[in-house]
Amino acid sequence: MPNQYAYLGPAGTFTEAALRELKPEVPVDSTVPCTGVDAVFTAVREGRVDGGVVPLENSVEGGVSATTAELIEGAPVMVTAEVAVPVEFTLFAREGVALADIKSVATHPHALAQCRGWLATNLPDAETFSVSSTAAAAQAVAEPGSPYDAAVSARIGGKRYGLRAVAEGVGDRSDAATRFIHIARPGPPPAPTGADRTSVVAFISDDHPGALIELLNQFAMRGVNLTRLESRPTGDGLGKYCFCIDAEGHVHEARVGEALMGVRRICTDVRFLGSYPRADGDTTLTPLQPPRRTSNADFHEAERWLARVRSGEVT
Amino acid sequence: MPNQYAYLGPAGTFTEAALRELKPEVPVDSTVPCTGVDAVFTAVREGRVDGGVVPLENSVEGGVSATTAELIEGAPVMVTAEVAVPVEFTLFAREGVALADIKSVATHPHALAQCRGWLATNLPDAETFSVSSTAAAAQAVAEPGSPYDAAVSARIGGKRYGLRAVAEGVGDRSDAATRFIHIARPGPPPAPTGADRTSVVAFISDDHPGALIELLNQFAMRGVNLTRLESRPTGDGLGKYCFCIDAEGHVHEARVGEALMGVRRICTDVRFLGSYPRADGDTTLTPLQPPRRTSNADFHEAERWLARVRSGEVT
Amino acid sequence: MPNQYAYLGPAGTFTEAALRELKPEVPVDSTVPCTGVDAVFTAVREGRVDGGVVPLENSVEGGVSATTAELIEGAPVMVTAEVAVPVEFTLFAREGVALADIKSVATHPHALAQCRGWLATNLPDAETFSVSSTAAAAQAVAEPGSPYDAAVSARIGGKRYGLRAVAEGVGDRSDAATRFIHIARPGPPPAPTGADRTSVVAFISDDHPGALIELLNQFAMRGVNLTRLESRPTGDGLGKYCFCIDAEGHVHEARVGEALMGVRRICTDVRFLGSYPRADGDTTLTPLQPPRRTSNADFHEAERWLARVRSGEVT
Amino acid sequence: MPNQYAYLGPAGTFTEAALRELKPEVPVDSTVPCTGVDAVFTAVREGRVDGGVVPLENSVEGGVSATTAELIEGAPVMVTAEVAVPVEFTLFAREGVALADIKSVATHPHALAQCRGWLATNLPDAETFSVSSTAAAAQAVAEPGSPYDAAVSARIGGKRYGLRAVAEGVGDRSDAATRFIHIARPGPPPAPTGADRTSVVAFISDDHPGALIELLNQFAMRGVNLTRLESRPTGDGLGKYCFCIDAEGHVHEARVGEALMGVRRICTDVRFLGSYPRADGDTTLTPLQPPRRTSNADFHEAERWLARVRSGEVT
Repeated sequence: MPNQYAYLGPAGTFTEAALRELKPEVPVDSTVPCTGVDAVFTAVREGRVDGGVVPLENSVEGGVSATTAELIEGAPVMVTAEVAVPVEFTLFAREGVALADIKSVATHPHALAQCRGWLATNLPDAETFSVSSTAAAAQAVAEPGSPYDAAVSARIGGKRYGLRAVAEGVGDRSDAATRFIHIARPGPPPAPTGADRTSVVAFISDDHPGALIELLNQFAMRGVNLTRLESRPTGDGLGKYCFCIDAEGHVHEARVGEALMGVRRICTDVRFLGSYPRADGDTTLTPLQPPRRTSNADFHEAERWLARVRSGEVT
Repeated sequence: MPNQYAYLGPAGTFTEAALRELKPEVPVDSTVPCTGVDAVFTAVREGRVDGGVVPLENSVEGGVSATTAELIEGAPVMVTAEVAVPVEFTLFAREGVALADIKSVATHPHALAQCRGWLATNLPDAETFSVSSTAAAAQAVAEPGSPYDAAVSARIGGKRYGLRAVAEGVGDRSDAATRFIHIARPGPPPAPTGADRTSVVAFISDDHPGALIELLNQFAMRGVNLTRLESRPTGDGLGKYCFCIDAEGHVHEARVGEALMGVRRICTDVRFLGSYPRADGDTTLTPLQPPRRTSNADFHEAERWLARVRSGEVT
Repeated sequence: MPNQYAYLGPAGTFTEAALRELKPEVPVDSTVPCTGVDAVFTAVREGRVDGGVVPLENSVEGGVSATTAELIEGAPVMVTAEVAVPVEFTLFAREGVALADIKSVATHPHALAQCRGWLATNLPDAETFSVSSTAAAAQAVAEPGSPYDAAVSARIGGKRYGLRAVAEGVGDRSDAATRFIHIARPGPPPAPTGADRTSVVAFISDDHPGALIELLNQFAMRGVNLTRLESRPTGDGLGKYCFCIDAEGHVHEARVGEALMGVRRICTDVRFLGSYPRADGDTTLTPLQPPRRTSNADFHEAERWLARVRSGEVT
Repeated sequence: MPNQYAYLGPAGTFTEAALRELKPEVPVDSTVPCTGVDAVFTAVREGRVDGGVVPLENSVEGGVSATTAELIEGAPVMVTAEVAVPVEFTLFAREGVALADIKSVATHPHALAQCRGWLATNLPDAETFSVSSTAAAAQAVAEPGSPYDAAVSARIGGKRYGLRAVAEGVGDRSDAATRFIHIARPGPPPAPTGADRTSVVAFISDDHPGALIELLNQFAMRGVNLTRLESRPTGDGLGKYCFCIDAEGHVHEARVGEALMGVRRICTDVRFLGSYPRADGDTTLTPLQPPRRTSNADFHEAERWLARVRSGEVT
C-alpha cells in the first residue's frame, strides 16, 4: 500500500495545494482530507497515515490556534517539512457566467475579509455569503441550482469543481501567504541541509521573573536567530503562557544544540517539535542580536581549544 | 439621552456579563449588542456609542484575533477598563426537561471543546450541535419546537431566554477565564489607582537584529513587569510581526513613562492603547527581572540628584 | 593675584607638560609643583590653588592608583578638563657629551622599562640607575660632578635643566601616552562642547548579583558608550570593588542624564566626577552596544510623544 | 635536589608568609627571594624553580600592576594555588626599646599609608621614613647603629631579623588582606575540589561595541559568578584594554567549560591562567546574575536530553 497523507480538508483548499507542493509525487487518491486540524493530528498519531499537512500561520491572520494547540498538547508529533503558499484568491463561476452577471459571492470569512476591497470596487452590488471554507464555496457554486453565482477560492479549489476563473488575484494584499507544516510521528529529524529551521515549545516558570529575556538570550548568545515567537496560554488561567519558537538552524548544529541545552536548563519543560528544511530564506524575523563568531566552525574550534586547556597544553 | 454602550452580541453572552460587571449602573436598554467585534469598534469610532466591550484573550484559546486586529489597525481607540470573567458553563433546558431527557445539546464550538469531558460523562448519548454563540444556543433552545433539548451557555444567557439550569459548572476546567476590555475614543487615560495596567503595540524594525530583547529590556531595566506579550503579523508577509504588550503600571508613573519613551525611541512605531485599573492582582506573568530600586520614589529621587549634579552642587 | 595651579612635580615632568598644554596662558611662576598626587588634591581642596593637574592613566602601565584613590575618597573634587600627552622619551646629556661617551643613564623605573630595547641596542654597555622621576634624572645630570652621564626624560625636563638632546624617541613604543586630568573644587560642569566625556564612580552592592551587567546596561540602553571601566577595591576586604567609569557625552545631554539617573537608582552610591571636553576623538574603547535611535534628538522627541500620550492626544 | 620556590623578596615580607602558608613543607633554604615580581616569573619560566609566589591584589591598593603585566605578557605561566594573607602590621624595635623611646619609624610607603592613623595617635612626634619593603625596614632597624628606632612590618619580618614586637595590629584597617598566587609552568590544572577559581585574560576587539556586556553574559548565562574583573591597558594606546577575570568554578566543570568556550568565540584572544582551589569562600564579588538551573548536574542532564532529541527519541 502506498504512503497515505492527511490534510485539512475539504479538497480544493490552500492546504491541499500545500500538500501537492510538499509531496508532488503522492497520487491524489493517497491523500485524505480531514474535517478539522485535530483530525489530521489524530490520523498521524494513530498511524493511519504517514504524515499530515496543516496550516501553521498566516501573514494576515496570525497563528492558527488549532494547530498550535495540537503541537503543544497531546502525544508528540514532529514537524519534518514546511512550505509557504501565497494566498492568491481567484473568483470562480460556472461556465458562461460573466463578471457582470455575479450578484452573490460565497467564500470563507477570512477570504472575504482579505478580498473586501476588490469586491467593493468590482462587484459593488454583489451580496456576500460566508461558508466553512473556500473549497466549500467552490463546491457550492458548482452545484446545479446553487444559490451563489461565484466563489472566491484557491486556484486548486475552482479547478477541482470544474469552475471557470472570472478574475485572478482578487485579494487586497498581493503578498499574503500561509505557512503550512508537514507532521509525522516522532523520529530522527531529517538531515541538515544548511538552511533549516528548528521549532520548540518552551514552558517558562511563571515564578521566575526575567525568564523570557533569559530564554531569548539563550538563542542570541549563540548567534541563533529566531524567526517566530508566539505566546500561547498554557490553559492554567489568565497570564500563564508558553512560547512557540522557530529558530534558524538544525538541532544537529553545534550552536543550535548548545542553545537548546540552555533553553532546556532554564525552562520548566521544553517540547522539541523538529528540525526541517526552510521553505525559503526570505521570511526571517531575526529579532535577536547575532554575536560575532558564532558559526559552527567557531563552536568546533572553541571545543578543541577547551580540550587543549583542560589537558594542560599551552594555547 | 443616557450613555450608550456597545458589546459583542448577541445578548446573553459572556461579553454581556462582562459589560454588566464593568458598568453595573447602565440600564439594559442603553446597551447595544453588535454582530462582530469589528462592529463594536466601528460604533465606538463613529461616536454612536460612548464605549464598547469586547473579549481580548481567553485562558484556554489565547488572544481574540479580531480584537487584536482592530486595536492595531484603523482609527485609534483607547482601552479604559478591563474585567476578567470566569468561564463558567451552565447546561440550560426548557422548564420540565430533566438531564435524563436531553438527547441534543447546542452551543458554540469553543464551549463544546471546553465541556467535552463533562458531556461524555454525563450525557454520553446526546448529540452536540455547533451554533454561532452560546447565547444563540440558549435562544434556540427557548424557541418552541426547537431541534435542541439543551444549551451550554453563560448563566446570563440561560436567564435571558427563560431557561432553567439543569447543571452548573459543566466546563472541564474550573479556572478558565476570559479577559474583556472596555474601549472608548482616545482621550486622557483614567487617573492612576496604584494597581494599573498599560497596553501598547510595538512595531520593531525587522532589519534590526536584537530588537525584541532590546524592547523587553526597556521595561525590565525600569522594573516594569510585563503581564502579556503577544506577537501578531503586521500583514506585510510571513515573518513580519508586531508585539502587543501589557505592562504593570500607569503611563503617569515615572518608571512607566521612561520605559515607554525608551520603547518609542527604538521602535519604528508605537501605538499607545491605554492605562487602566487592573482587574485583579493575580494574573501576572511577570516575565521580566525587576531590578532593585525601581519604585517611582526612586525615580523621583534620581531626578533630584541629577538636577543637583547639573547645577554643580556637591552630592 | 593671578590664578595658581598645582601639579605633580617636580618641574620638568610629563605632568608639567600636560599643565602647559591645558593652561598655556598661565605663567610658570603661577604653577606649583607638588611632591605626590595627594598633595595636589589637598592644595585644590583647601583652596590654595585654583586647579591641579595629575596623571590618570597610562597606556602601558594602566591607571594611576594614587589619583584613583583621591578621586574616590576624601572631599569631592571635579574633573574639568583632560589632555593626552604622548610619552616621548628623549635622551639628554650635558653639553659636549656624545652618545658614545655615555656610560651611565638615570631615569624613572617606568621610563627605564619603556626604553629598555633602545638602550640595549644603542647603549649596550651603559649602566642604568633608577631615580624618583624623569625630571629628577635630568636635574641630577645637570649638576656639576653628576654620577650620571645622561638622563631619559620628557623634552620639557631636559630643557628646564639646560641639557642637550642626544637622541629623540628612545621609547620602545611610539604610541605610548598618558592621560592627565585637571581637577577643581566642585561646581557646575563646563558647558557641553559636543565632544565631551563624563566620569563617575559607581559603588554596586555586592549582595546584588548581576549588578555589573545591569550597571553597564544603564549606559548601553541609552546608547552611551563607555571609554573606560576600571575596578578598584573599596578597602572593605578582598572581593569588594567599585567601578570608575568614563562615558561619552555630557551630563547635560538627555541620554547621559537618563543613564546617570539609572545608575544612581541601582547603585549603593555614585560619585559624579565631572563632564568635560574630550581630549580627542580617537581614544574610544566603546565596549557597549549603541542601540539605534539614541541621539539626544530622539530623547527629546520621545519626551514630547509621552507628553501627548499622557494628555490624551492621538499620537 | 628538593623542589625550589621563588618569591618576591626580600625575606620577611608578606609574600614569604604567603609562601609558608601555601607550602608549609618546603624548607626555608629551598625558597629563593627575588628582587622584583618579574624576577619570580623569569625564574619560573626558565625552570630554575618549580614555582613562585607573588602578590596579585590588595584589598586597599588594588591589583599589583607588575604581576598583572607578567600574567598577560611573555611566556605563559599557570596559576595553581592562591592564598589570602591578612595584612597585619606589627611595630618592631630592637630589644630594650620601648614605645616611648621611638622617634623614627621605617617602613614601605604602602604600609605607612595604612598605619597613618595609629602612628598619629600613638607616636605623634616620631618621624617616618620610606624604604623599599617592610622587610627591608626590619632589616635596617636590626643593624647596629641603625638610623631608625622601629620598623612597621609583617610578623615574619620582625622575627626573621630578631626584633621585638612593641605593638601589634598597628594598621588602621583590621580587615585589609593581600591575595597571593602560586605560579608554575603550564600543565594540566590541579583536580577540581568543589570550591575552585578560574582565571583568564580576555582581549575583546575594540571595534566591537557591546563586547564587554557580551563577555560578562557568557559567564552569567551559565550561572558562573565572577569574583574579580580588572581592566588593563593592552599597551596599544589609550582606550585599549583587556580584562583579567576571576570566576568561580573549575575548567573541568561543564558550566565553566561552556562559558570559556563562549568567551573564546567572541574574543580576539583568551589566555587561560589556571583553575585552582579557592583560598576561602567569603571573598566573592558575585557581580553576575546566576540563572536558575545551572548546576553541573543540570548541564549533564541537558546534554543527555539533546542526545535523545537528536536521535529521535520522544522526550
